[in-house]
Amino acid sequence: MMSLLQSAPAQYRAKTSGRFEYAIANIGLAEAGRHQLRLAENEMPGLMALRAEYAGQQPLAGARIAGSLHMTVQTAVLIETLVELGAQVRWASCNIFSTQDEAAAAVVVGPTGTVEAPSGVPVFAWKGESLSEYWWCAERIFDWSAEADAADTSWNGPNLILDDGGDATLLVHHGASYERAGAVPGPEQAENDEERVVLDLLREGLVSDAERWTRVAEGIIGVTEETTTGVLRLHELFRDDKLLFPAINVNDSVTKSKFDNKYGIRHSLPDGLNRATDVLIGGKVALVVGYGDVGKGAAEALRGQGARVVVAEVDPICALQAAMDGFQVATIETVAAEADIVVTCTGNKNVVTADHMLKLKHLAVVGNVGHFDNEIDMAGLERLEGVERVEIKPQVHEWRLPTGRSILVLSEGRLMNLGNATGHPSFVMSNSFTNQVLAQLELYVSPERYPVGVYVLPKHLDEKVARLHLDALGVELTILTDEQANYIGVPVEGPYKADTYRY
Amino acid sequence: MMSLLQSAPAQYRAKTSGRFEYAIANIGLAEAGRHQLRLAENEMPGLMALRAEYAGQQPLAGARIAGSLHMTVQTAVLIETLVELGAQVRWASCNIFSTQDEAAAAVVVGPTGTVEAPSGVPVFAWKGESLSEYWWCAERIFDWSAEADAADTSWNGPNLILDDGGDATLLVHHGASYERAGAVPGPEQAENDEERVVLDLLREGLVSDAERWTRVAEGIIGVTEETTTGVLRLHELFRDDKLLFPAINVNDSVTKSKFDNKYGIRHSLPDGLNRATDVLIGGKVALVVGYGDVGKGAAEALRGQGARVVVAEVDPICALQAAMDGFQVATIETVAAEADIVVTCTGNKNVVTADHMLKLKHLAVVGNVGHFDNEIDMAGLERLEGVERVEIKPQVHEWRLPTGRSILVLSEGRLMNLGNATGHPSFVMSNSFTNQVLAQLELYVSPERYPVGVYVLPKHLDEKVARLHLDALGVELTILTDEQANYIGVPVEGPYKADTYRY
Amino acid sequence: MMSLLQSAPAQYRAKTSGRFEYAIANIGLAEAGRHQLRLAENEMPGLMALRAEYAGQQPLAGARIAGSLHMTVQTAVLIETLVELGAQVRWASCNIFSTQDEAAAAVVVGPTGTVEAPSGVPVFAWKGESLSEYWWCAERIFDWSAEADAADTSWNGPNLILDDGGDATLLVHHGASYERAGAVPGPEQAENDEERVVLDLLREGLVSDAERWTRVAEGIIGVTEETTTGVLRLHELFRDDKLLFPAINVNDSVTKSKFDNKYGIRHSLPDGLNRATDVLIGGKVALVVGYGDVGKGAAEALRGQGARVVVAEVDPICALQAAMDGFQVATIETVAAEADIVVTCTGNKNVVTADHMLKLKHLAVVGNVGHFDNEIDMAGLERLEGVERVEIKPQVHEWRLPTGRSILVLSEGRLMNLGNATGHPSFVMSNSFTNQVLAQLELYVSPERYPVGVYVLPKHLDEKVARLHLDALGVELTILTDEQANYIGVPVEGPYKADTYRY
Amino acid sequence: MMSLLQSAPAQYRAKTSGRFEYAIANIGLAEAGRHQLRLAENEMPGLMALRAEYAGQQPLAGARIAGSLHMTVQTAVLIETLVELGAQVRWASCNIFSTQDEAAAAVVVGPTGTVEAPSGVPVFAWKGESLSEYWWCAERIFDWSAEADAADTSWNGPNLILDDGGDATLLVHHGASYERAGAVPGPEQAENDEERVVLDLLREGLVSDAERWTRVAEGIIGVTEETTTGVLRLHELFRDDKLLFPAINVNDSVTKSKFDNKYGIRHSLPDGLNRATDVLIGGKVALVVGYGDVGKGAAEALRGQGARVVVAEVDPICALQAAMDGFQVATIETVAAEADIVVTCTGNKNVVTADHMLKLKHLAVVGNVGHFDNEIDMAGLERLEGVERVEIKPQVHEWRLPTGRSILVLSEGRLMNLGNATGHPSFVMSNSFTNQVLAQLELYVSPERYPVGVYVLPKHLDEKVARLHLDALGVELTILTDEQANYIGVPVEGPYKADTYRY
Repeated sequence: MMSLLQSAPAQYRAKTSGRFEYAIANIGLAEAGRHQLRLAENEMPGLMALRAEYAGQQPLAGARIAGSLHMTVQTAVLIETLVELGAQVRWASCNIFSTQDEAAAAVVVGPTGTVEAPSGVPVFAWKGESLSEYWWCAERIFDWSAEADAADTSWNGPNLILDDGGDATLLVHHGASYERAGAVPGPEQAENDEERVVLDLLREGLVSDAERWTRVAEGIIGVTEETTTGVLRLHELFRDDKLLFPAINVNDSVTKSKFDNKYGIRHSLPDGLNRATDVLIGGKVALVVGYGDVGKGAAEALRGQGARVVVAEVDPICALQAAMDGFQVATIETVAAEADIVVTCTGNKNVVTADHMLKLKHLAVVGNVGHFDNEIDMAGLERLEGVERVEIKPQVHEWRLPTGRSILVLSEGRLMNLGNATGHPSFVMSNSFTNQVLAQLELYVSPERYPVGVYVLPKHLDEKVARLHLDALGVELTILTDEQANYIGVPVEGPYKADTYRY
Repeated sequence: MMSLLQSAPAQYRAKTSGRFEYAIANIGLAEAGRHQLRLAENEMPGLMALRAEYAGQQPLAGARIAGSLHMTVQTAVLIETLVELGAQVRWASCNIFSTQDEAAAAVVVGPTGTVEAPSGVPVFAWKGESLSEYWWCAERIFDWSAEADAADTSWNGPNLILDDGGDATLLVHHGASYERAGAVPGPEQAENDEERVVLDLLREGLVSDAERWTRVAEGIIGVTEETTTGVLRLHELFRDDKLLFPAINVNDSVTKSKFDNKYGIRHSLPDGLNRATDVLIGGKVALVVGYGDVGKGAAEALRGQGARVVVAEVDPICALQAAMDGFQVATIETVAAEADIVVTCTGNKNVVTADHMLKLKHLAVVGNVGHFDNEIDMAGLERLEGVERVEIKPQVHEWRLPTGRSILVLSEGRLMNLGNATGHPSFVMSNSFTNQVLAQLELYVSPERYPVGVYVLPKHLDEKVARLHLDALGVELTILTDEQANYIGVPVEGPYKADTYRY
Repeated sequence: MMSLLQSAPAQYRAKTSGRFEYAIANIGLAEAGRHQLRLAENEMPGLMALRAEYAGQQPLAGARIAGSLHMTVQTAVLIETLVELGAQVRWASCNIFSTQDEAAAAVVVGPTGTVEAPSGVPVFAWKGESLSEYWWCAERIFDWSAEADAADTSWNGPNLILDDGGDATLLVHHGASYERAGAVPGPEQAENDEERVVLDLLREGLVSDAERWTRVAEGIIGVTEETTTGVLRLHELFRDDKLLFPAINVNDSVTKSKFDNKYGIRHSLPDGLNRATDVLIGGKVALVVGYGDVGKGAAEALRGQGARVVVAEVDPICALQAAMDGFQVATIETVAAEADIVVTCTGNKNVVTADHMLKLKHLAVVGNVGHFDNEIDMAGLERLEGVERVEIKPQVHEWRLPTGRSILVLSEGRLMNLGNATGHPSFVMSNSFTNQVLAQLELYVSPERYPVGVYVLPKHLDEKVARLHLDALGVELTILTDEQANYIGVPVEGPYKADTYRY
Repeated sequence: MMSLLQSAPAQYRAKTSGRFEYAIANIGLAEAGRHQLRLAENEMPGLMALRAEYAGQQPLAGARIAGSLHMTVQTAVLIETLVELGAQVRWASCNIFSTQDEAAAAVVVGPTGTVEAPSGVPVFAWKGESLSEYWWCAERIFDWSAEADAADTSWNGPNLILDDGGDATLLVHHGASYERAGAVPGPEQAENDEERVVLDLLREGLVSDAERWTRVAEGIIGVTEETTTGVLRLHELFRDDKLLFPAINVNDSVTKSKFDNKYGIRHSLPDGLNRATDVLIGGKVALVVGYGDVGKGAAEALRGQGARVVVAEVDPICALQAAMDGFQVATIETVAAEADIVVTCTGNKNVVTADHMLKLKHLAVVGNVGHFDNEIDMAGLERLEGVERVEIKPQVHEWRLPTGRSILVLSEGRLMNLGNATGHPSFVMSNSFTNQVLAQLELYVSPERYPVGVYVLPKHLDEKVARLHLDALGVELTILTDEQANYIGVPVEGPYKADTYRY
């Protein structure tokens, strides 16, 4: 990228913000990205409805949002929605591989800008970052010296974080913590490469400004968090009395967890299997490991393609649900020798072990749509004596086993619906991201409701997210009469259910 | 029944308990009932597993349970399970129509008794009680003068209530309340017939014993409640500081609400439609009003029979779920003219109005599986000028409308899965009732955990209920490794999920 | 019945036709039957459409139809349709148990008659005939001395047969054959009871009129046959050069075989299971033996109720279809020990043997929806040493096996969708019966097209049957443009497919 | 390609066969192709079973097969199966776009050859041929001067054709016809570009050898044809008494038409939609035009992904099937305004017209999986005044309509399951291709059974094809007892069904 930047017009070279480097480096991509944004907007009615609802009102005027979330086409629509609502935004990705460069470029150029005169949002993200590049990008979204109000020079950080996985939140908390301690631990205290990179970055920063993260933390009204993992970290911080600002858990909105997990996977699992292998799903034995929302979506998708689905479960309630839904429920050990497809959906580690893989049918397909990269024991697989790995194509590897059989592992055990397909489709993400925008609005407009703590969005906003997606699907909603609303003790306009309702 | 009792052998006539009257009145029924119990036991593995788990231990020894719940074959298995665990039991039904006489007779006779020498449980219930008979039966379960420990003559009431709908609980609370007030309101203050019957009963009682219900209330360790309606009443009592003893809400156990409502209705809705009308479901347009758990089960069942299902919903989240599950979502007004079958599943009133019914196709079938008898506006239907009601067969009526068209209304708007079929099957009830037994055990064995309040069963017991039903379905459960349990922060043996998990 | 007739008004007693005896014997039933007919007419749009199409035209004027087909409510609508098209009709059932008495009574009374003054069709059928009564009824439909045109005294038989299973056709062929031979074999030559009854009847007849069946056969334009079995007999007769008149095979119309078998069973199998046992189908292992049209309907129905369906098949093509539809395919031997429900759908004998039944789970349910009563080896079951049969209720028997386990056998191995439920619903039968009416019309109006032989209805009539059922389901049909019709080489109005098309 | 050939080693340059040019031109591709073949072999158990069955027997020894069928990975496994059975083979594709270059290269190299020393089969096919290149390739498969037996110099053509669409068959028939006429029509008589190319090719050939195609035709034992279109052409030739050799219609084997069409489309339709658009299918309204086998597969796939499927049909029988399967059946006109996805499955032309497209929702997706490129009226779309076509990505175009709305058209109206995905998966093609091999064996081994005419494979071979695919899916087949086989009048080993059976 540097060399491209070197060849850029002088006025851009002088800039320090990532926005311009990016636009220059990706001339040609931005236009393709804008096409895709336009199509995605049609599939993200929740976000577009918020733009319409707040047209001309700018409820986020004055908000400075530091965003850390996969820089995809869908995120681009999210970012531009935040901007339309009045926010200033800086963005990084939360994963070194997940950036769609054309989406990033399109956001930088902006809806009304051009490649030559970009007018969009500074984005610090590209597909295939190194770890140090990743954390450099993460740090960049906290430096608002360029964007911040010139009149308010007392500090220059964001006042809101929009986070996915908690890396942005972690940076602030660690930074402030080391500032209080007066020192950052040495690299030898890092438990892994990534931690060392973070320590290095914070240590260097401490030299130039010993109160930067403390100031940043003070300036932050709150964070909205997208994922289970990020929410877990927030709960631990709060439990340990270390949480520095309130957090809204977007992950557990019904319109996030029940839609994203179930319907998103229903879509992207067979998509990933097909793109990876072109193997007929119909008639095959497919083992779905885990029958939570993700597993439910996976099982439905595979049955819908004519597979015979077997479910493995740990939780007796979910196991009973699987049985009542007509699936055989068995252990991997029992099914391994007849399974053609194995999909992990657990959120746990080593659910498919090397031993399991040794027992699978020849050329069985193994993939993960659960979380991270450790549901399939790739390390154990690699350690097998005499095992051989042959790349069939990117993200599809044949592992030749000592038994003489082979298996096909997708995306090296990482999320195959992302690695072999394109992840959740826009409509599903529109639900998640409408929750994000509403959560940002809650924190910014009504901070008094949110003392330091971890919250879920109130039920009426969850219902609002759903409501904003109905028209696009041609759904006609029935309206309660006053008499009916009284009878069940709810307002006519909702919310309609107790917080414990399970849907 | 009296006359039958008069003709009974003298030794029975001398008894005052309902047990003997019943056995005599139903000579011949008891044997058929015992056959059915034997078959039902095979379908109620949760209850049978509890019998096996506690064999010889009698954890409920000393418990005196007053039960008020539909006196069906399944309830008979519940009752005998409580007895096997050491409890003494007296029983009434919670509905004037729902008693299966052969089940009642079989319980009275008991597993080891005979018609001539019954050794079972006193049951006060028969199919087709009048309102005053119903409340007489309800009162009878609180009179333990025959069964109570002779050594403990200080009082003679139950120490536990097992309730369905809250009538037994209501009797105690009203009784004690009027005793505190020193008087029972006059019949003119009753809002309806049933209330007047209750007031009469309590007024008469107050004359003979002015502290009876106060003593009963004091003796009660707690109540376990089966239904939404009963739980609502309990929450209101607790909110108003009037609750006299702790209550466990069995209704909201996952293994109750998510199984009973969804899978029970999936079974009994088409069963009821078929028995009532023999109309082909395949190819028809079926309108499911409400897409909660009941509606989800209904929609799945109708689709499984080849109907084209349309859903009507008020709650945008449930509406969005219906759309994502592939159903058209529309208002009754939109669909009425093409609907062949209309099923209410809402828990609300007047969801199908007379106006709606006027618009339906000729001979459209209208039924309710939601709650009570007011989801379909029967009163409004009756008021239509010139409307005519023709009984096709019991529980199936053709209503000839002023439009010249007719509709078929099932079970006069009451629950048609009960009225036209046989309600939830044993396996589903085994889940509910295993929760009931565990809840009774909790209250009796560990009363210190339950100060006055309304509780749901702890997650580990909910999981246990599920666990006890797996073997019967051939389900093999996977067991977490220690490493995996640590990784997700749960014990190997569970519970596995947070209380807010939605399944 | 005789005694009822004896007590009838004198004017009825003098009559010889069955119509009047029946009406008298069933006073009270007829009204209920007329109610049911009215409801059934709404579900039989094909027949009602034919009535409308030929209103005032009487295309069957002069036709004298001898009908032998289950005397149900649906058949009643068929009979009255034939009458509306101008035919004279006499009717018997084709099965000793299948008559619905109220339907028979209603047909005798007729749409415009009363119980006192019946104006309908002579029906010779009641529920629970003996074998000799059955064949007496069968003979009665060939005696048209009362109905036949007084001007045409040369003979007094029908000119068309509408047959189900071929008994009516058999009677004519055997009768004529013995007349040619000049003698009927003695009773000692009968292979079974039923054959002896037929021989006796024919032998007696030969005495009084030695050319009766020869004349009847000569008068018959043709027969339309409903079933596989009847068609098989017809093909054998034709192959052996013994067929006396042309036959139309209604059974193999697409709108019969693909609808009746698949969608009829999809409806009536779960209905029968529920009425018989009330056992939850969801979560259970259900073995469907045979994956032809009946098996396909059975498997779909069971899956639709949440069962885990396993299929057993002999034909590798059907087995592969089952696998591609997502079902496990295995032998009974493999699955017996885990099957909760076993359903035979094969058209073959002894597909479930006593050995299989010994291996089933305790209280597994075993039923037949295939054909006849020999798919389940009831004889083998009875021969097991120490086996015990306990009637749970009519048509539901527990067989206590020497293993200590029991199984539940439905309808004693006969068709359980008939024995435990009410068979195919009206809408499905409307397809079959519209084919019947069209076939009768073909033979009567265009006899020149049908030299002696066995025919299926031409494709355009098959399509017409379907067409007549679309409006009732709200189906909008697309119409080909002339250009499109040319392009695929079919007329705009059809037929659209080659005779070999498989649908 | 020429330049690559020029740079090839001299010994290859001297060769005239396409095999070597190809191998050289595709160095690097062949290895990837061999990987894919190995994976595909695992998914084509029918072909592999034939290799095993005939191992060492070479039943096709002496056969010289001219093949014209999409040169894909699956076809590569077919070709190598023919070779293993002893045949000599030359191959061209039957479509200018469908060749997978790596598959072609792999076949040329052969299983035991290397890129430097190819030992495979001459293949004349590459992705993106011009029309004249296409017909040059087609001609090349008839020139066996290099491969033919040196001892048999009298002629040098193939003795079998394996055809897809009939182009190879057409070339022989036209060639021989013009030879009989003594002249090829001038280019001005061609009706289109492609016809002119064929005439040119034949005219040039006639100059050098005036009896070539006559000799070729005489040498041909028969052709096996894959497609509906090719079979239609063959029937027309036979009807007009112009067919020069027997033909086996592989298309109408049950294991072809019912599997390829239904299960192949069920797989590849959603795959194509996903790769093309990434649009969520769940919750959308999808219009399936045509409910034959292709439409049935399409509807099942879309429902399996949670779409609300509406079917449009012309044939009342298929329309009734769709209704009974639970789908709304309506015309395009009725549904257009609410359809998100429109898929044509008819085999007819202009089923989606420009008028229809004008009525669709904004950004509705329109694709064809029926046949050819004229189901969607692309010409009409282009003619709309002011219409604009924007390429979103290859094979995905946004058409901006004069209404201000846009639609997305996939693969320019050609088969989108091929253009946007990878067509039928290997397992499905294994069924088709096993039929092909069996048909080639029939013609070659038992030519006496096949006088000139058009045949389908006998039922027992159709069943054999199915049988060879069962093990791979873990299917256990049940075996008839002798008694059972007798009872239904079939051999124990099959065939089991009449030719008219519809499956």
